[in-house]
Order: sequence, then structure tokens, then C-alpha cells
Amino acid sequence: MNKIEHIGIAVKSLESSNELFSKLFGQPHYKVETVESEGVKTSFFNVGTNKIELLEATNEDGPIAKFIKKKGEGIHHIAFDVDDIESEIIRLKKEGFVVLNETPKKGADNKLVAFLHPKSANGVLIELCQERKL
Amino acid sequence: MNKIEHIGIAVKSLESSNELFSKLFGQPHYKVETVESEGVKTSFFNVGTNKIELLEATNEDGPIAKFIKKKGEGIHHIAFDVDDIESEIIRLKKEGFVVLNETPKKGADNKLVAFLHPKSANGVLIELCQERKL
Repeated sequence: MNKIEHIGIAVKSLESSNELFSKLFGQPHYKVETVESEGVKTSFFNVGTNKIELLEATNEDGPIAKFIKKKGEGIHHIAFDVDDIESEIIRLKKEGFVVLNETPKKGADNKLVAFLHPKSANGVLIELCQERKL
Repeated sequence: MNKIEHIGIAVKSLESSNELFSKLFGQPHYKVETVESEGVKTSFFNVGTNKIELLEATNEDGPIAKFIKKKGEGIHHIAFDVDDIESEIIRLKKEGFVVLNETPKKGADNKLVAFLHPKSANGVLIELCQERKL
């Protein structure tokens, strides 16, 4: 794993949270992207070589809406940048982690992504992500 | 803010979580440090230019013990690296963030640290940290 690619934060209102995090970082988000298949609208901030992804639910039955109902706003997942997501999935399964997406899926920000179940990772929802080749 | 310095993860047992995260990252933690004043024993892993800090309570009344009782194991805070923590504290107070440590305190890993209250930051406990000059 090369670095923390981003931290995903579940928010109720992307509009007001974009303003809040702009104040925190002293600079605005650099893009907004909707991932219909996940029921989320996202925005991204740069923090040096890392990113913060804010996630607003677009679908009441989606994972972000459910997370906020259960736990409130806050950190949703950590994403680690990997070079070869398929070999990482194989390696981590062998190590006993529960991989939620055995076939990587298309995520936001031009990535192939796969999640590890928090129950197998100390309560942390972990995303592996690899830049997609265009 | 220069980058994500580390992500702090609250764990019940540093020993078993060190083993788990060694499997995740494919390499062991590089140090263990106890911060008596905070009631925590910590271990650190490198992930590229970022770090993961595992936090085990050494004190049942401390913040990590309380966090785990309330929420279970999981992500506890995000720490951002800053060049000048005192000027960042002043800037963020002006922006409306609630700063829990107006005078930075000594944290783990040779840092000066200050926390922002999660209620002022979308439910996220944010740590500012600056390398201490030796």
C-alpha cells in the first residue's frame, strides 16, 4: 500500500460541509462527482498528497444514508492507494480479511475500488483503490 | 495543512491489533509509545508518507476507554500536519472551530498537538500536529 489515498467523511449536506472544510483547509474543494450506483454525491479536497472525500447520500437506502442514521456524521472509511488491486485482494483474503468486492468496482475519482468488511479490520471500513487506466 | 500526518484507530488490544495491521500493510509497526498523560499506549505503522496510530487505553477513565465503551473499536481521529500550530489555532478559532487545546500539548511521536471539537467539524475529531524542535 502506497499511501492514504483519501479519507471518506459522511455528511448530511454537501453544500454546508463544503463550506466548513474549505475553512478548515483554507482552500475550496476541487471537484464534485455523483456515483449513482452507490447512491452518493461526493466532493474532494486536496491536503498535500492526500485527499478528503465528503459523501452525501442521494438515496435513502444507500450506505451513506444508513451510516448517518446509525452513527451520525463522521469518518466513514479510509482508502489506501494500491498498485495492483487484484493481487492485493488475493493477498488480504489469504490473511483472513473479509473482502466485500472480490471483483473491483468503479468508484469515484477514476478508481477501481474494493472494500474490506470492518468486522475483519478492527471496526474500520477499508477501501483499496487503484487508478483506472484510461 | 501539509498532509494527513496519521489516522488514529482505537483498539482493545494493541498486541492483537498490531498483528492484524501488520497483515494489512505487509510490514510490522515501527514503534510503541506510551503517553501517560493521555492514558494511552500507541503503536505506529508507516503507509508511504502517512502513518497509522493504534491506540489502546491504559486508563479506564481516559478518552480511548470511553470511546470504545461508547462506539466500539474504530477510527478515533484524523491528524493533519501543520508548520505552525499556534497560528493555525488562531486561524481556525476565527473560522468558528472549537479548539480544545488553546495551548498545544505534547503528544506521541515528538509532536505538539491540539484537537478540534468534533461538534464543530462534522462529527470528526481533528488533531493538528507540528513536529517539535529538539
